[in-house]
Amino acid sequence: MKILLKIQYIGTAYCGFQCQKNAVAVQNVLTDAAKRVFGVPCLVTGSSRTDAGVHALGFCATVETGEGAFSIPVERLHRAFSQVLPDDISVIDAALVCDDFHPRYSAKGKNYIYRIWDSPVNNPFERGRSMFYPRRIDGERLALMEKAAAAFVGKQDFSAFMATGSKVTDTVRTVSEAFLYREEGGCLVFSVSADGFLYNMVRIMAGTLIEVASGKIDAQSIKDIISSKNRKKAGVTAPPEGLYLKEVFYDENICWQGL
Amino acid sequence: MKILLKIQYIGTAYCGFQCQKNAVAVQNVLTDAAKRVFGVPCLVTGSSRTDAGVHALGFCATVETGEGAFSIPVERLHRAFSQVLPDDISVIDAALVCDDFHPRYSAKGKNYIYRIWDSPVNNPFERGRSMFYPRRIDGERLALMEKAAAAFVGKQDFSAFMATGSKVTDTVRTVSEAFLYREEGGCLVFSVSADGFLYNMVRIMAGTLIEVASGKIDAQSIKDIISSKNRKKAGVTAPPEGLYLKEVFYDENICWQGL
Repeated sequence: MKILLKIQYIGTAYCGFQCQKNAVAVQNVLTDAAKRVFGVPCLVTGSSRTDAGVHALGFCATVETGEGAFSIPVERLHRAFSQVLPDDISVIDAALVCDDFHPRYSAKGKNYIYRIWDSPVNNPFERGRSMFYPRRIDGERLALMEKAAAAFVGKQDFSAFMATGSKVTDTVRTVSEAFLYREEGGCLVFSVSADGFLYNMVRIMAGTLIEVASGKIDAQSIKDIISSKNRKKAGVTAPPEGLYLKEVFYDENICWQGL
Repeated sequence: MKILLKIQYIGTAYCGFQCQKNAVAVQNVLTDAAKRVFGVPCLVTGSSRTDAGVHALGFCATVETGEGAFSIPVERLHRAFSQVLPDDISVIDAALVCDDFHPRYSAKGKNYIYRIWDSPVNNPFERGRSMFYPRRIDGERLALMEKAAAAFVGKQDFSAFMATGSKVTDTVRTVSEAFLYREEGGCLVFSVSADGFLYNMVRIMAGTLIEVASGKIDAQSIKDIISSKNRKKAGVTAPPEGLYLKEVFYDENICWQGL
């Protein structure tokens, strides 16, 4: 049986989603939890890797249960997992999927948000959950950032926005949406959707936008930076704590419970 | 010199604002920080006590610096404190006040909010920051809660909403506002303002409202519960993690920096 789980987690305590040597990954914790829930060892596969410290609001992962697994109705899985998962990871929805479904390869795209606490005063409730930028971004500066963000949209070669050392060769991605909005609570949020993302792509985009706000990078130059294919032309990699994987898009009709 | 600080803190790690034996209070941490900021021992006095685990969005406390204190412009104090305070406490504003100003006795009232995560699914980002109620409160149930909340408004004897064992004798308080709203992020929030609060008053109010939502307490009976002056007639004391001291009201014209 193959079950797709939608999960949320606070990434602070983990080395990312994917298992690594000498570090605790969300995948490790989820694999242990699945074994307790289903009573048999399960194979857990994620939709993405996510870096250490990066959070998830709608991460997707499949759980393949072997023979002899407990039969638990899909609509009760979130409760079963809540009994065995730590406080910082939660299953928020679940669906049965076909055997040939793959959380990563079946994904048509993803939406990430990058949260920025832009204020001269620290907010303890935002520590570890957003990037701290010590001045308010509004007016002209915000308009420049919005202009820069819009330049990310389109089918483009994003090698300038990929961490150096990455071995990916096809660096063309289609960004369908890239815009900024302000949360009721106060954070400035950069939202970006694409058919796929290169390593550190959103964090480099966010870092570049911050440098546009602070006047270090010209908002007009984003297209030039993209066409340069030169990582050095883009801004710094913004810290992981501001990044959230918000949604994974699938073509298939996933029968979520909609809890 | 007497300085009024507006502070935010995540209460999870503390026994409350006020110093207690064998426990770390926010007051201890703030007193140590003030000594490092001003270079001399300082007297720190808070506007309220707050329980263990309760949070603050706009707590007020005075710092009295003795002779020989470093002279730091008020508008830079939040930065100076940010260098010496832990991540879960932050000075968000500051103002010079007269010698006869007292953060508690000069206060004309306070506003508290109580946050409820009302959903069948856990939200890791809300753990320790709101009360978890495992079903959505809307429609009829929400209307009943709203009706019950409105009954708190007025000058009334709130002994039924005071923790047993409290030694306060004047139990009449004037509630100026009591209402519910929903945050963009999803929490249902109970907001209550009064000229003063009895021990555990907001948590008992919130617990009572929850019991109204779940049908255990009749929304019509709030006025009767109040006039009964019987703690046993009101609902349970809701957990501390949902409670936030949001604002302290002062009559005086406090010259906040408005950061």
